[in-house]
Amino acid sequence: MIKIGLLGYGNIAEGLEEILSKNASRIKKRCGHAVEIKSALVRDLSKVRKGIPPHIQLTTHPADILDDPEISIVVEVMGGEHPALELLSDAIKAKKHVVTANKLLIAVHKEYLFDLAKTHAVKIGFEASVGGGIPLIKTLKVGLSPNEIEAIYGIVNGTTNFILSQIETEKKEFHTALKHAQKLGFAEADPHMDVSGLDAAYKLIILANVGFKVNIQLSDMSYEGITSISKDDIDCSNQLGYTIKLLAIGRKRSDGQYIFKVHPTLIPKTHPLAHIQNELNAIYIQSKGLGETLLSGKGAGPLPTGSAIASDIIDIILDGPHTGLRQVEAPAKPVTPLSIDLTHSQFFIRLTVTDTLGVLETVSRVLGKHHISIAKLIQQPVKKNTAQLLIITHPIIESELKAGIEEVKKESVILAINSLIRVGLDEN
Amino acid sequence: MIKIGLLGYGNIAEGLEEILSKNASRIKKRCGHAVEIKSALVRDLSKVRKGIPPHIQLTTHPADILDDPEISIVVEVMGGEHPALELLSDAIKAKKHVVTANKLLIAVHKEYLFDLAKTHAVKIGFEASVGGGIPLIKTLKVGLSPNEIEAIYGIVNGTTNFILSQIETEKKEFHTALKHAQKLGFAEADPHMDVSGLDAAYKLIILANVGFKVNIQLSDMSYEGITSISKDDIDCSNQLGYTIKLLAIGRKRSDGQYIFKVHPTLIPKTHPLAHIQNELNAIYIQSKGLGETLLSGKGAGPLPTGSAIASDIIDIILDGPHTGLRQVEAPAKPVTPLSIDLTHSQFFIRLTVTDTLGVLETVSRVLGKHHISIAKLIQQPVKKNTAQLLIITHPIIESELKAGIEEVKKESVILAINSLIRVGLDEN
Repeated sequence: MIKIGLLGYGNIAEGLEEILSKNASRIKKRCGHAVEIKSALVRDLSKVRKGIPPHIQLTTHPADILDDPEISIVVEVMGGEHPALELLSDAIKAKKHVVTANKLLIAVHKEYLFDLAKTHAVKIGFEASVGGGIPLIKTLKVGLSPNEIEAIYGIVNGTTNFILSQIETEKKEFHTALKHAQKLGFAEADPHMDVSGLDAAYKLIILANVGFKVNIQLSDMSYEGITSISKDDIDCSNQLGYTIKLLAIGRKRSDGQYIFKVHPTLIPKTHPLAHIQNELNAIYIQSKGLGETLLSGKGAGPLPTGSAIASDIIDIILDGPHTGLRQVEAPAKPVTPLSIDLTHSQFFIRLTVTDTLGVLETVSRVLGKHHISIAKLIQQPVKKNTAQLLIITHPIIESELKAGIEEVKKESVILAINSLIRVGLDEN
Repeated sequence: MIKIGLLGYGNIAEGLEEILSKNASRIKKRCGHAVEIKSALVRDLSKVRKGIPPHIQLTTHPADILDDPEISIVVEVMGGEHPALELLSDAIKAKKHVVTANKLLIAVHKEYLFDLAKTHAVKIGFEASVGGGIPLIKTLKVGLSPNEIEAIYGIVNGTTNFILSQIETEKKEFHTALKHAQKLGFAEADPHMDVSGLDAAYKLIILANVGFKVNIQLSDMSYEGITSISKDDIDCSNQLGYTIKLLAIGRKRSDGQYIFKVHPTLIPKTHPLAHIQNELNAIYIQSKGLGETLLSGKGAGPLPTGSAIASDIIDIILDGPHTGLRQVEAPAKPVTPLSIDLTHSQFFIRLTVTDTLGVLETVSRVLGKHHISIAKLIQQPVKKNTAQLLIITHPIIESELKAGIEEVKKESVILAINSLIRVGLDEN
């Protein structure tokens, strides 16, 4: 019998308990040992926890878990940076194998934690930190490991994907879609972490480490969220044959430069990522040899996250008493990603112009003067002597586009630049 | 340095050699050992092998590989049942870990081979036997292992998927599409194994074993290929909002019955599997807890297959000298799948009728008399006093449908039943 100690007991812990108890015989057959949660560290014993099984002892003392010789694996499901980091470190020092769903801890402290784990000859599982129930960390670590990964495009935040899908299919505006997501439990009361792109940025740091074997800092990365995406943006993208997704993008260019960035992206409807709807997550991996591989599934929620944690527990048990090579992390080198200003993209520009004869010619001349070349253009129905233009540009260096747009704004024919969103996957 | 011996040296071996040499430093970093092919067993030394690296020794004597103490892992890439089975068994008896891409060997002889491997304390990797470069065996074995799998729907044969895609997008007929596939190397000179559904059936036996932990026999399974699928079938499916894919279907029903079958299936265009085009493979897994997980990527070809073999080699090296728990296969129980006659499906029926007033009423009455109930019906443009009807039925037990169709054929208003294809994923 393998006994588990939990740090924290919330939704995720409940999901893990459900997975472990409902699949007890399957898990025992798979790894030769029964697995059971023995105890959980909580902040407040008096808080009512519905349906907690009687065999799980709750405690407010970390030592009850860390010093319990019966517990061989500690699972951190409290979230946040502190005291999760300290408690996880203490568990490692107490020679417990650890599993965490905490993307922030792994994104920011992975090197420290893995060094510590090496010293104390224990293993760390973090499958649940990115992509929820999709086994993508294991896939990158072993299944795809013989290949050089060229690019990863991920829809790694279920909240924003749910909101964008709602805007698109239910014709809601951002704030209404957000409220709906909160009501259904797909967004938190304070949605900042998700809608700002920060959650996706942390996950991209982890993907950079596992997929590209590079360490990047949040401060070196550009990330944008979806708060500025309107129903009009999505409607207009649809008319041009695109949809909008929040993408976490990692790419190694042929010149050796790395690009890591998070931003809303227009994706052609023909691309598999365009069909990842609602709370689903997906990562699309381009590698030499394998070409394109797509993994998709439920990216969040108690059961998918609990399932990912359970798979880490099984993985640790399968390794047996030897830490072995499987736990050795291939060394990652620190890199500074290319500044987003120096990256190439196509852009979607939605702008309002005065509706005069020859306005299209004027706009294309004005844009062209500032080196912005048009690949596709649609003129929208007119209101009150104005017209809306939807433009997809040819690829352009981002700093040039931004400088050009500043100049374009000064032209009298241009009444407003409504939106500016990056397009496509290839030229990022 | 880990030295590999090959049984066979064809396209797949070349792909493996390319993966291993181009990614040598990555692989060494990942698993702590350099990996190199030392020798390969071939039938005919005089056959010219272009670009074979000088460090690979070719031999016609199995003993040169099996008795070489420097070789710790033997990779079988010769294909077919004999002598591959005997050579692989001899490698295991010689205490070599083995890796194989041979779906037939694993589908038919997995139990024997794994028992032998247990006796001799070596490991068997077979990632390349299903889904080419998609790491789906590893995903089923560990990543998804805490979950009860309810259904697997796989596009596991790249040749037939390529042909169906060509029929759909290039408006070719089956035989022209097959010739094109042969020209591009996506189909073999003798395409029987692929187009008959037999290749997919072997792969389904492996998925049944790994995903559902059951052993099934080919003789107990129903499998159909795509030779009867015409351009008209696909055009008409498109009009109804579907596409046609050859699906390998595994399902555990709530009454405990197992369904394992391979057949062309109409899939709604809204389903992710409908977007898996050309030579790509995909598996769509429904499990408790995780819901839907989709894995897709290149299902065949020297580099994807070589990559899957290389990932097995890395996996074996990561396990270190201990066979350990990771190699223990959870016991699979023998089951007989439910006869396809007793399964439920919706059906697509394409039929020709005399074009008289009230023909729709007559046809639905005739079908209804034989318990076939219509969910969707389209009447096609008429030629020479005849009309074509496209019908999607409500779910019906297959034996009932077949009996009903035999009766329907006798009705004078029905001129021909052109096609009868199963529809959808849920009610199978």
